[in-house]
Amino acid sequence: MKRRLRSAPDAVGAVPVRTGTGSYPVLVGLGLLERIPELLCEYAPGHRYALISDDHVASLYAESVVASCTDAGLDAGLFTFPQGEASKTRKQWSILTDALLDAGIRRDGVVVALGGGVTGDLGGFVAATYLRGIPVVQVPTSLVAMIDASVGGKTAVDVRAGKNLVGAFHPPRVVVADPLAIGTLPVHERAQGLAEAIKHGAILDSRYFDDLSEAADGLLAGDARATRAAVLRSVELKARVVTEDEHEEGFRQILNFGHTIGHAIEAASSYSVGHGMAIAAGMILEARLGERLGVTETGTSERLSRALSRFGMGAVPRLDVGIDEILGYMGVDKKARQGRARFVFLRSVGSVRGDDGWSSEAPPAEVSRVVEEALRGGA
Amino acid sequence: MKRRLRSAPDAVGAVPVRTGTGSYPVLVGLGLLERIPELLCEYAPGHRYALISDDHVASLYAESVVASCTDAGLDAGLFTFPQGEASKTRKQWSILTDALLDAGIRRDGVVVALGGGVTGDLGGFVAATYLRGIPVVQVPTSLVAMIDASVGGKTAVDVRAGKNLVGAFHPPRVVVADPLAIGTLPVHERAQGLAEAIKHGAILDSRYFDDLSEAADGLLAGDARATRAAVLRSVELKARVVTEDEHEEGFRQILNFGHTIGHAIEAASSYSVGHGMAIAAGMILEARLGERLGVTETGTSERLSRALSRFGMGAVPRLDVGIDEILGYMGVDKKARQGRARFVFLRSVGSVRGDDGWSSEAPPAEVSRVVEEALRGGA
Repeated sequence: MKRRLRSAPDAVGAVPVRTGTGSYPVLVGLGLLERIPELLCEYAPGHRYALISDDHVASLYAESVVASCTDAGLDAGLFTFPQGEASKTRKQWSILTDALLDAGIRRDGVVVALGGGVTGDLGGFVAATYLRGIPVVQVPTSLVAMIDASVGGKTAVDVRAGKNLVGAFHPPRVVVADPLAIGTLPVHERAQGLAEAIKHGAILDSRYFDDLSEAADGLLAGDARATRAAVLRSVELKARVVTEDEHEEGFRQILNFGHTIGHAIEAASSYSVGHGMAIAAGMILEARLGERLGVTETGTSERLSRALSRFGMGAVPRLDVGIDEILGYMGVDKKARQGRARFVFLRSVGSVRGDDGWSSEAPPAEVSRVVEEALRGGA
Repeated sequence: MKRRLRSAPDAVGAVPVRTGTGSYPVLVGLGLLERIPELLCEYAPGHRYALISDDHVASLYAESVVASCTDAGLDAGLFTFPQGEASKTRKQWSILTDALLDAGIRRDGVVVALGGGVTGDLGGFVAATYLRGIPVVQVPTSLVAMIDASVGGKTAVDVRAGKNLVGAFHPPRVVVADPLAIGTLPVHERAQGLAEAIKHGAILDSRYFDDLSEAADGLLAGDARATRAAVLRSVELKARVVTEDEHEEGFRQILNFGHTIGHAIEAASSYSVGHGMAIAAGMILEARLGERLGVTETGTSERLSRALSRFGMGAVPRLDVGIDEILGYMGVDKKARQGRARFVFLRSVGSVRGDDGWSSEAPPAEVSRVVEEALRGGA
């Protein structure tokens, strides 16, 4: 199995994503960062290019990409912001927008968002709203951005009331994913990204799910070919979903598997638990909830836990918060007959239950019990 | 001719506007404001309705519309902001967005933007970016908003670098225009709106152009049937243009006739000259420029001036600013061989020149001469 993920060829994979107004390719290939100038000319011809990066990725990659664009005769400039989720704000969006305006970028300009998920969301939202929308090229450099965030056209910033509540759907002209960039990530960040890959397997492809556990060591070590194969397969699966339901009106909800409880854990920990770790716990607990409700095959939660343990994410993290706080983040009130939270339930690994829509509510008492047991005992 | 604009029936006119992803109707009819609840149910079914209005229109119309929605069993709330262009900012957009979030409006919510152009632009941008986009219904209550701004899906806010530079294309579910609302407008505001109607005639329909001058007195007095006929014809013309070119990549540029010089006059006067008056002067001068360059039929500028004079806008306003300042706002440098400003040139009244694209540059010396003569002598 490990062999299967490693045996993929070095050629560039191109996965088409269809949208309401056209289609764009997600390119996955080793060394693509070196080919940015030619890819921009091919997929997003423009008069000027505004590269948006955080200050960390700027020194790692963006500065040299801008230099290579300039060498190739393109008019390219770099616009940076402070690294971290704290920059994903309306304020930073305003600052970047004003900087592009001051630089005289016009409607024939193109934004290139080069970095992790924050950069893709923030840079994408700048492009979505700049002069009522100019093209954006997504160049994800983190594993979670390659595997998940850069595909699907979602852009957003965080506001007081929550994450990603202000934004736009703004499909990119092209997504350029170079797994060689993963080499510079710390191991725990690679693990975070792989949680989303495991989710893709869990909801849509049990063979991919098994392949990922088999290849765990190589993936965690940042092996380029194993990473390339995983990114490509995850992108294929996600492209299938967002092509079918671009604006999350139905089927796209399945991508929220693990996220209802996961987001609550993340928020209740004040984001000290990382996204991947929180989603991993969310998947295990939502599968367990599904088993309790008789909609998910017995043993599914255990199988998820086993696979995730290969990536160091097999246990629900101990949290110093009360059950009520976590339930509160889900909008679940134990005394209510029905909570407002919706859950995506697996039928088994590789298959989502879609009998009556792609997500459903659950009895608050059961939700509460599953979360409480996990918090008390670890899982 | 006056009779023609007056003879239109009282029935509701419905003009379809096609977009890249569907189509929406612009409804024009006397008394439609009374029918908002049923129209919302028909065209924009939602769980909750957020009416956005400025504090002036709120007391005139929005409060009673909210009350009628509540009476009809709809869950509707009113969100207001201070009247005026000064509210069309990212800051006010943030305040409104946070207010909707605090009120718990979710993805099944609908924004109803009820008011003039500022409300349509600001409320539309809130809807475009709220949870990555929720439906918006446009209910224009000013003449310029009915005739022009509410059709075409443009939303925006102003920023330091200029007006409307941040925004989105977000087509409404329906536009509801009730010419009875015009009755409460001051005369000079009706005139402002009619400048855009005359523009529609000038670029696309010489008969409509003549009809408007004939009906001038009734239109300025706010006669409901004449207004209804003018709104309907302008909406038909504008719908034809934005259906052909939703995102202003070509043909839609013709709507900018009069706006290159007009915007510069508006800005150079620090907006003491109103939009309609500035556009009127812009149309006269851009037609004169076209005549000088030999692309516009001789006498066109004079014909525009005569028609506009029926509305009190036949003369270029005296401005206490230098020619260089106005040229500066157009990006025109007299010493340059080519300025960056682009102009839409009429062939004659009712027809735009489209030989090599829908707009073109002009020799800065000629632009400068036309503007200078007008400033020195009035026109």
